[in-house]
This record gives sequence, C-alpha cells and structure tokens, in this order.
Amino acid sequence: MRIFSTFVFHRRQQIFNLRQFQTTTILRNPISIAPIQIPMDATEQSLRQSLSEKSSSVEAQGNAVRALKASRAAKPDIDAAIEQLNKLKLEKSTVEKELQSIISSSGNGSLNREAFRKAVVNTLERRLFYIPSFKIYSGVAGLFDYGPPGCAIKSNVLSFWRQHFILEENMLEVDCPCVTPEVVLKASGHVDKFTDLMVKDEKTGTCYRADHLLKDYCTEKLEKDLTISAEKAAELKDVLAVMEDFSPEQLGAKIREYGITAPDTKNPLSDPYPFNLMFQTSIGPSGLIPGYMRPETAQGIFVNFKDLYYYNGKKLPFAAAQIGQAFRNEISPRQGLLRVREFTLAEIEHFVDPENKSHPKFSDVAKLEFLMFPREEQMSGQSAKKLCLGEAVAKGTVNNETLGYFIGRVYLFLTRLGIDKERLRFRQHLANEMAHYAADCWDAEIESSYGWIECVGIADRSAYDLRAHSDKSGTPLVAEEKFAEPKEVEKLVITPVKKELGLAFKGNQKNVVESLEAMNEEEAMEMKATLESKGEVEFYVCTLKKSVNIKKNMVSISKEKKKEHQRVFTPSVIEPSFGIGRIIYCLYEHCFSTRPSKAGDEQLNLFRFPPLVAPIKCTVFPLVQNQQFEEAAKVISKELASVGISHKIDITGTSIGKRYARTDELGVPFAITVDSDTSVTIRERDSKDQVRVTLKEAASVVSSVSEGKMTWQDVWATFPHHSSAAADE
Amino acid sequence: MRIFSTFVFHRRQQIFNLRQFQTTTILRNPISIAPIQIPMDATEQSLRQSLSEKSSSVEAQGNAVRALKASRAAKPDIDAAIEQLNKLKLEKSTVEKELQSIISSSGNGSLNREAFRKAVVNTLERRLFYIPSFKIYSGVAGLFDYGPPGCAIKSNVLSFWRQHFILEENMLEVDCPCVTPEVVLKASGHVDKFTDLMVKDEKTGTCYRADHLLKDYCTEKLEKDLTISAEKAAELKDVLAVMEDFSPEQLGAKIREYGITAPDTKNPLSDPYPFNLMFQTSIGPSGLIPGYMRPETAQGIFVNFKDLYYYNGKKLPFAAAQIGQAFRNEISPRQGLLRVREFTLAEIEHFVDPENKSHPKFSDVAKLEFLMFPREEQMSGQSAKKLCLGEAVAKGTVNNETLGYFIGRVYLFLTRLGIDKERLRFRQHLANEMAHYAADCWDAEIESSYGWIECVGIADRSAYDLRAHSDKSGTPLVAEEKFAEPKEVEKLVITPVKKELGLAFKGNQKNVVESLEAMNEEEAMEMKATLESKGEVEFYVCTLKKSVNIKKNMVSISKEKKKEHQRVFTPSVIEPSFGIGRIIYCLYEHCFSTRPSKAGDEQLNLFRFPPLVAPIKCTVFPLVQNQQFEEAAKVISKELASVGISHKIDITGTSIGKRYARTDELGVPFAITVDSDTSVTIRERDSKDQVRVTLKEAASVVSSVSEGKMTWQDVWATFPHHSSAAADE
Repeated sequence: MRIFSTFVFHRRQQIFNLRQFQTTTILRNPISIAPIQIPMDATEQSLRQSLSEKSSSVEAQGNAVRALKASRAAKPDIDAAIEQLNKLKLEKSTVEKELQSIISSSGNGSLNREAFRKAVVNTLERRLFYIPSFKIYSGVAGLFDYGPPGCAIKSNVLSFWRQHFILEENMLEVDCPCVTPEVVLKASGHVDKFTDLMVKDEKTGTCYRADHLLKDYCTEKLEKDLTISAEKAAELKDVLAVMEDFSPEQLGAKIREYGITAPDTKNPLSDPYPFNLMFQTSIGPSGLIPGYMRPETAQGIFVNFKDLYYYNGKKLPFAAAQIGQAFRNEISPRQGLLRVREFTLAEIEHFVDPENKSHPKFSDVAKLEFLMFPREEQMSGQSAKKLCLGEAVAKGTVNNETLGYFIGRVYLFLTRLGIDKERLRFRQHLANEMAHYAADCWDAEIESSYGWIECVGIADRSAYDLRAHSDKSGTPLVAEEKFAEPKEVEKLVITPVKKELGLAFKGNQKNVVESLEAMNEEEAMEMKATLESKGEVEFYVCTLKKSVNIKKNMVSISKEKKKEHQRVFTPSVIEPSFGIGRIIYCLYEHCFSTRPSKAGDEQLNLFRFPPLVAPIKCTVFPLVQNQQFEEAAKVISKELASVGISHKIDITGTSIGKRYARTDELGVPFAITVDSDTSVTIRERDSKDQVRVTLKEAASVVSSVSEGKMTWQDVWATFPHHSSAAADE
Repeated sequence: MRIFSTFVFHRRQQIFNLRQFQTTTILRNPISIAPIQIPMDATEQSLRQSLSEKSSSVEAQGNAVRALKASRAAKPDIDAAIEQLNKLKLEKSTVEKELQSIISSSGNGSLNREAFRKAVVNTLERRLFYIPSFKIYSGVAGLFDYGPPGCAIKSNVLSFWRQHFILEENMLEVDCPCVTPEVVLKASGHVDKFTDLMVKDEKTGTCYRADHLLKDYCTEKLEKDLTISAEKAAELKDVLAVMEDFSPEQLGAKIREYGITAPDTKNPLSDPYPFNLMFQTSIGPSGLIPGYMRPETAQGIFVNFKDLYYYNGKKLPFAAAQIGQAFRNEISPRQGLLRVREFTLAEIEHFVDPENKSHPKFSDVAKLEFLMFPREEQMSGQSAKKLCLGEAVAKGTVNNETLGYFIGRVYLFLTRLGIDKERLRFRQHLANEMAHYAADCWDAEIESSYGWIECVGIADRSAYDLRAHSDKSGTPLVAEEKFAEPKEVEKLVITPVKKELGLAFKGNQKNVVESLEAMNEEEAMEMKATLESKGEVEFYVCTLKKSVNIKKNMVSISKEKKKEHQRVFTPSVIEPSFGIGRIIYCLYEHCFSTRPSKAGDEQLNLFRFPPLVAPIKCTVFPLVQNQQFEEAAKVISKELASVGISHKIDITGTSIGKRYARTDELGVPFAITVDSDTSVTIRERDSKDQVRVTLKEAASVVSSVSEGKMTWQDVWATFPHHSSAAADE
C-alpha cells in the first residue's frame, strides 16, 4: 500500500508556487491575455485558406502556360491559358486585398489607439504631468518623475484612498522601510522566485525579455505576412495566448524553432534563464547583510501581524494598510508609465477568520452592478457582463462576502476618481493563474490604449503569507478564539520513533520523519490499520521521490481526547493591492478629450478630471492687467489658500480665451475671472458655462463645489448666468 | 610677480568641499556642538587643580611618614605626621566629593534626560507609534516602522507641510524616483565625498564610526576619571569640540595617542578611512549601470530645473518642492529615531536672481520674535537670544530677505505643529561649517533629551548645484533677464595661444590654459600690464601646484565692447530641508507629559498633541455596553467619517476612566461619551473639561474644533458644562 504524504508535498510546492506568482501577475502584466486559446476570426481563417488555394492555382496555371509555350502549342491555346492565368491572378489579388483589410482593420484599431495615446502623452509631457527622470543625463528606462500637475493628482488620489479605505474602514496604517533584509524576502519567496525569463545577445551581451521577443515575432508575422497558412496563423495566435505559462525550456524551444535573433544585431540568442527583478543592495558597512529594495509593501504588514493584532485588542477581522514605493528592476521596460522600475503601491491586508468570511458592511455594496468577467465566461469565450455584486456572492461566483465587499469598494473608489465605468471590469483569475493556496482572485482591469490593464488585484490568499513568516522566523503569527466553555476534541498524535528510523534510513531519516508527521488524519489512520494488520507499509516520501518501508516499531499513531479552551489559528488574508501609477495613467486617458477652438481652426485638449483629483481646483484671472483687478485676485487667492483650495493666479496679458484653453489642458475645473472689483465670474470647464457671484462669495462657492458639497448644477441654479460670447475665445 | 588663479582653485575645491559637506552637517549631526572651544567650567577646573595638589600632598606626606618610621623617629613626631596625613586625606576626599558632585550634576542632568526619554520611548513603542522594523527577524539597526498612530501623525505633518509651503506659496511639487544613476550623484559630489570615517577591529572586522569611539572615550574619561589633570580635562573637552573637523589622519592620531581599542573585543583598530554612506545597487539586467538610493531628494529638483523654469513661464523667483524617502547607510546607527538608515525628507529649492534676494511677503514674518543663535554669539560663548526677524535681516545678521522669510515660515510651521518655542532655536552656521560657496546657513534646532537636534537646514547655496549639473550634463541650467533696451557692456576676452603654450608646457598645457581662462578681470588686467611692460610674468597654476613662466606670445588679453539684449545667469538656490522623522520625534518629547491618576496611585501618560497633528481627533465611547448607545455611537462615527475626522469607537466594557487614560496616551484631543440617545458629552484631553451637546451637534463641534475653526475656549463658552466627578476615573 502506498500512502502519499500530500501535506508535505503541498508545503514544498508552496516554495515554488507562491506569492511572486501572484505578484508577477498582479501589476506586472499590463495587457491581460486570458491564457486560453483565442479562436481565430472565421473570415480571416477562410481568407488565408482561400489565398493559399489561389496561390497554388496561379502557380499551377503559370506552369501550364510555360509548358504550352515550351511545347510550341497553338497560339489560341496559349492565349486561352494566359487569359485563365490572369483571371486567377485577379482572384488571388482580390482575396489578398480582403485579407489585408481584415488584418489591418484590427491593425487600424491599434493605429487609432496609438494616435490617441500619442496625443495624450504629448499633452502630459508638455504640461509636465510627468517627465522622464534624469532627462539632462539622457534618462534611465522605466524611471519617471511626476511634475507639478502629476504630483498634485497623485497626492489627491492618495488622500482619497486614505479617506475611502483607511479612515472609513478604520484600518491600521503602517509605514515600513523600502530597504529590506534578505531573510524577509527569502521567507516570502521573492529571493528564489521573483524572476522574469531573459535571453542575451550571444555576442554583445545585450539583454531582452524572452517573452517580449516571442510576442513581437508572432504579432509581426500575423500582421504583415499574408503568405502564412491558416494553420500557421492559428498556431501563432495560440502561442500568444499561452506563452505566459511557458517554462524556460518551452520558451527557448519556440525561440529556436522560429529562428528569432537579437532585434538590434540579428546575433543568435542564449537560452532563456531567470533574472531576479529585485534591486539588490547591502545593509551596513561590513557588506555582510544582503538586502533588497522591497518589490511590494505587503511583507512589512505581515511581519508586524502580531503587534497589530494586539493593537487591535486581539480581535478579528481587522485590516492593515500601507502606501509606499516598490521597486522592480525590469529587464527592458516598455509601455511608458505602465511598466516602470519604481512605483507607488497602496496595499491592504485584511485579516479574517478562515471559518467566517462574512462582512458586516457587505449590504452597503450588495446592490452595485458593474462589469464582471468570471472564470467561466472567459473559458467559454464570452465577454464581461454586468452583474449585481450581491448576486455574484450569493451564487458563489465571488468566493466570499469580504472579497465581494472589497470588489465593491474598489469599484466605488475607481469610478469616483473618474475612471469610466464602461471601461472598467473585474476579471476573475483562472485556476491556472492562481497560486494553489489562493481561494479566489479578481483583478480590476481598466481599458486603455494598451488594452485591458490590471490596476488593482484583489486576492483571498488564505493563510499562506502568515504561515511562511511563522515558519521562517519561529514567531507564531496566529489568532485565538476563546471558547465560552471548554470543548472536548479528539486529536491525532503521530510520534515517529527516531531511533528506529535513524537505524533504517540514516541520512534520509529527517525526510521520513517530516513526511510521517505531515500525514492528515485519514492517511494516518489508514497507516495505523495497515501496520496493525500487516506489520509494515510502503510509504511514499515526496521529498525523497521514492517509497520506503515503514515497520510497526517505527511510528506510533493514536487519537487522544483533550479539553480545549480556545482555538488557535492562522488568519486568512484578503489583499487588495493598488498600482497607483497605473490607475493615474488610465485616468489620464479616460479624462482626455479634445474640442474645436471657437474659430474651428484647431483642436483644443482638455482633461475632464473630477474636482476631487484635479491638480488645481481653480485658476484666478484678472480680465485685464490693472492693479485694481490684481488686488481683487490676490484677495480671492488668499481666501482660497486659507480654505485649502489649490489654485493659481494667471496675470499674463494673454487673451482670456487662451488662458481658459491653457487651464483646460491642465484639467482645472473652475476659473474665476475678475472683471470688476465687486463681482466676478466663475466658469466650469466641461460646460464652459459661467455664473456671476460677488467677490466675497467667490472662494466659498469654488470651495463648496470643489469639495463636493455642491454640484455645478446647484451653482447654476443659484447664481445669475453670465454670458460673454467673446470671453471663451 | 605671481598671480593666483583663484577661480580655478575654487572650482577644484568645490569637488572636495561641497554639498555633502552641507548634507553631512544638515540632518546628520543630531547633537550640534558648535565647533569652537567650550570653556571648561571655572569651578571644575579649580577643583581638578586642587585635587591634583591634594593628591601630591597626600603622597608627599605618606612618604614623610614612611621615612620617619624607617628612621625609627620619636613616636610623637610620627603621630604628628600621621595626623597631618589624615588631615590631608580628608581634605583630598572633600575636594574629590565636590568634583564628583559637579561632574555628576551635569551627569545627573543627562540621567534625568535618559529617564524621561525612556518613559517617552516606552510609551511610543507600547502604543505602536513606532516599531523596530522586521522585529520577528531580530530587526535591522537604524530601520523603523511607523505603526498606526505614528503613521497618522506623519501623514498629518506632511499634509500640513504641503498646505503651509506648497499650496500657500504656490510651489511646484515634483516626485522623483529613489533609484538614481551614478552620473547624477557623481555631479553632486556624493559618489566621491558622501562619507563618514570608519575604523575596523583588526581581528574581527567589525566596523565602527571613528568619531563615535573618540567621543565615547573623551566623555567617559571626563565623567568617570577624577584623577585626570585640569589640563588633560581641558584637552579632552577641546577634542570633543573640534573633532568634527578632524581629517582622517588627525582622527587616527588621536585614537592611537589615547590607545583606543575596539569596544567589544579590545582588539587594535585600523586607521580611519572614508566609507560611502549611499546604498549602492545596479539598474537593469546587464549590471552595467551603477546606481544608488538617493541620499536626499534635492538632486531630482536640480536636474529638472530647465523644465520647471519653463513651466513657470520663465519667471524667477519660484520654488520647487519634494517630499520623499532618502537613504543613508549609516555605519553604526545609534540614538533611536534620530539617526536612521531610511527617512522622509521634505525639501524646497527656491530659485532666485542672485542680484535680487528680496521677498515680496517678507513683511508677513518681519515682526516675529524667536530664539536665534548668530555666529558671533556662538564664537563669544554667549547663548541664543530672542531676536526680531525683521531686525536680524535689516542688520545683516541674516544674509537676505528670502532666507529670512523661510526662517520665519519654518518657525511658524514648527510651532503650529506643537514644538515648544522655548526649545526651538535658529543657529547660524559658523564660517568653517559652511561650504565656501554658501552665502549663509541657519539650522532650526530643537532641544530634546539628546540635546539640540538639527531638524531643518535653511541654506543659501548660491549657484553651486545648478552649475555642477550644467557642467556635468552639458545642459545649461540658467535663467534669462530680457533688458527693456540693449545695454552696452565691456567684456574681458582672454585668448590663450595654444600652439605656444603646447610647445612650452606639453602635458601641462591644459592646466595652464584653464588657469589663464579662469582669471578674473583684475588678475587679467594686471597680467596684461606686466606682459606689456616686461614681456613675461610668473603665474601660479594651482592645479599644478607651481608657478610657470608666461610669455607675451602665449596669451592675448583685451576688453571688448558688446551690445547685450539680455542677461543670462545661474540662479541662486535657497534650500530649506526638513528631516520629517526628527521633527516628529522631537514633537513626541515636547508633547509628552504625565499626571497622577485620580487615586494618586500611578502616573498616567499623555501626549498633548495639537488637533492638527493628533493621530486620531476623537474617540467615541458608549458609556455602558447597550445597543441604544452603540447605535448612537455608530451614527456619530458615520458623520465624523463623512467630514473626514479620524476617530475610533471604543465599545469595550472597561471603565470610562480607563478608556480616557488609554485615549490620552495616544494623544487623542477629544472624546465623545454617549450616555443618552439624545445628547452626549465632549471631553477635552488637556483640561479634562467636558461640555454637553446634542447628538446631532456632536460631529460638527468636534470637526470645527479639530480643524481650528473654533477653539476649545469657544466650545466651553457656548455649551453647557458637564461635571461628572466619577467620569474621569
């Protein structure tokens, strides 16, 4: 009889199959391609098929014509054959054009997306929303600065995050260093497994991400090579869909099969090998304490679990949160602000009793409806659909209420920032995307010109992380539930007899002992029965990858009754993890818009940011350059500053229309124009509507509408309208 | 005749004598010891003198007694001598006791300070204001986490900083990465010179900061060894005062002279050598781009100067600001939260025309009076004194209005946070503390149990930093002033004749050319005159450290008239740099207080944080555990959350007095006790006074008084007083 010690097997597996698998997915794959076969469009397939047939016919007819000519056939026969050839060529050319147009229609889509992105990015860079870091020294790939408006937006997003999550949910915020000693990231698995596959140009040593090269090859073939067969096209599409799951060997084999070489030099490439994405450093002067810049903020929370649990009065559930920098030394960063080497993460670790994942405030979000993309819809090739969150939890589509509550809160957070709810979906991880210990995992994906971008990962990671740090540090990271009265429980006791095992297995004794101790109840009782009836049993030790013979005197197995006063358990953790930079970039795209200038001769850019995130809430313009108006502007400015409304005075002599255009391009929602020393106008960016208010009211109206205490509709209904045809141009 | 090319000399010097000299001073020396000789207390000196005389007398008399005994002198003679010996011993012992008491009175001061600090730190750690990082893995020296209350305070301090500086002054905020390529920090000088002197245990390799060991030796000798002479004591005090300026050789010589060994092993020590304090890493997969974790945030601003200047409409002055993490790999961090390896800096770089450092808003701060400690007072052994800021600028004590304006704004910032204005002083750097290019520099120092701590450095750094990056990057970082009409200017033109110089100086040609070109007008015209009269001149080339002979044909010097339409110049930068963690630690000490419990049987801790920084503004207590009160508490909680007032509900069944004590210890300024379902009491932490308000008013009253729209005095005057003798205990 063979008994598999599954527990030990699982524990070992976790070392290879853990957190970084999640983190490399969350926030690391900007374009999520569900790893299932994408069916090729039927038209494209039949056209590729038809093109290949037409090509053969043309070739055959060409041969026929040449044969007729060689045999000096009669001229009418030759002419007829040539006519037929030309007809076939025409048919081939028609099919070719059709196929080209189908391919480039998707291509055109991407061209449009690229043109749109170029317009956004151009505006962002010109107005210093962001700046490539260290530009005067030619910059460093994957590092960007936030300039003044970008910085203000980031600060607003983080303030709102703190308000929406930490304050409203009474979370425990912590702030841990970025410099992290190796032992912590060894326990979390990052030291061993936080890697991407890399290939090197064998002559120059230049490094590339192996999957990027394969992806580029497949995409280019599909888009530009009309001669590939329908089967070949299907194969390339299949590779694109599943390559995320390739092993180094599989990836290397494909690179060799397709003859892919270094893009810059056409030199041969090395086999793919893993490159650790952490920035390494050394702590202290001796050089003896290796450290890394943290690749995520979560570990700082896990290692503090015990203190935080006590701080919370030893009560579950509670959540801890952290906002901070994280670092990933990407092999070759592309996609601008979406794949960077240093970024701000905001992470929540919500600790909960694994036996009770209900949430007291779930009813607050249960009625929300939004785009969800459950596992089944992905597997069956459907698209995301609007679901009611309460029903999704009730039906078990979402694993539990707490996970569901956070999905709802994330939805509210993102849409209040200004993310378009039609371009936001919650996609469930497929079984093969999740670590085996995860109970369920959903990504908030936002559609941008790069495709659907993972911006928030919301995972029920079970007890994995706390257990990993308990094991490594020797400090139990557990919670307790005191029973109202003691409970009698039956406990399995497995006692390996080390002396006998040592004699029998020598150096392998430790593996055998661990495997024996790790048996679950069913396995242990089965072994006990076999030992009692037969005196020995064959036992598979997964860490030795072989079976051993266990004799009756080598282990004692029994069940004992005990009175227990409390239950001690490792809490489950539900982790919403926000990539702040990605959210902000998607927000830029969703808020960007253009409208014709009044003269109609140019397109003006604007960012329709909600006041909540707008970098500056208000611009103050004296209509013309005179002292009286400038003084009034200063009075308003001082009042705005005192109520904490960020604003800017623009006293340049430029036309008021140009000044409005300038302020629209920064996404400033309101403009106060000082055209008298008693009253002023307030203009709203999106409608371009203006009202007239007294000088004294100006700051408080703008403050109310900026802070959401009033809507612009309220303002419009309350104050006299100002129409100045000349003003806006 | 010798002409010294001072400019080149200075430029070379800057490479050795630069920013890190400043930065190592600012925020790196927690206890500022003015590097001048500290005069020894006259009493101590005379007592040491007297003790040494008494010791000699005792020794001499002892010898006399022994001599009498040896010569078998008459008993009365011997007895008289012994009596005299005993008298002398008594006198010696009296002096010894007096000296001991004088030394330990300063020592006692430090003991009291240590006891106080222990009480503060104990409370801070117990209530998770901070946590040693990675504690379950035994921690890492110099790394700390902010726990929930610490994190909330940090967030409040930074919000207020943003409001007080960035918003009110319309500064341009930027946010740059921590990972920085080497070239940037090479230009700033950090790669070559951001070092501390280190010694190694020659047998075990353990590293120590050389100055720490010398300091510990001197302090211990002075405090514990009564036998050292007055001269020796004076020498040790002198060493303590000047050791900051020691070269490696001087420091090594002292360590050898005093026979200082490794503290743990008593092994001999290596000579002191510089250790670079930056955390090093490598950017990208090739390992070919060396990088560091930034040691300050300022460089990110300097490298963006050009873009920021354009963003500001090419107008000066303007200020840019950055809040972010900085990293310094300290050799052996001590002093808890004051000397850490990773910390938050908030830095402002205010760019200004060097010819006009006036500030339009200076009058807003001119009337402020506070403790200032100008250079002269330090040199003449006086102490800090209250000065009026306007007068200090008018008299030239503070170099210019802009510097003065920031000193005033920093004063307002710190005192509004809750720093005691009697324990805050602005100390001017002495001439030998400043880099030669700095125009003036003042540190905001806060007194704590560790002494006077530098928490903010405010320096006029002239054009140094922008010039360094212009030179290294080749991108001119300059501003322009357009003239209303062109100006005619006379320009010095120095043209070295390279062919002749090459023949004469071969390999040294480049040094000679640089020195010639670097002459100022006076030097050049003097050379021209000498060349014309004598045909040659002796010229000192500092980079060659020798004089060379320059002939008439080797250089042409002339003055040319030119019309100029604008002036192009490198702006000066005035840099206020805030060590946020240090400010917060000092705030903890200044706000910490104890008061007896009502029963008088124990001392209760409290933090008297102003509402602005308090981690939580309000606690909500149902008086007893019942559903009605708990529902009312939830209603109040929801209202507080909606107006953004951080708070906590405490529904534990503990006595209300205990709950007040718990909340006082976290520094929560207000407590709402729900003792009915229509009205509640609000208690103020410091006075323990209580008012009664309706349930509906509760949240808005607490919000007003937390946000400074009302004072507690207003509340006290408006609402009925509640006196519950039983409540507070």
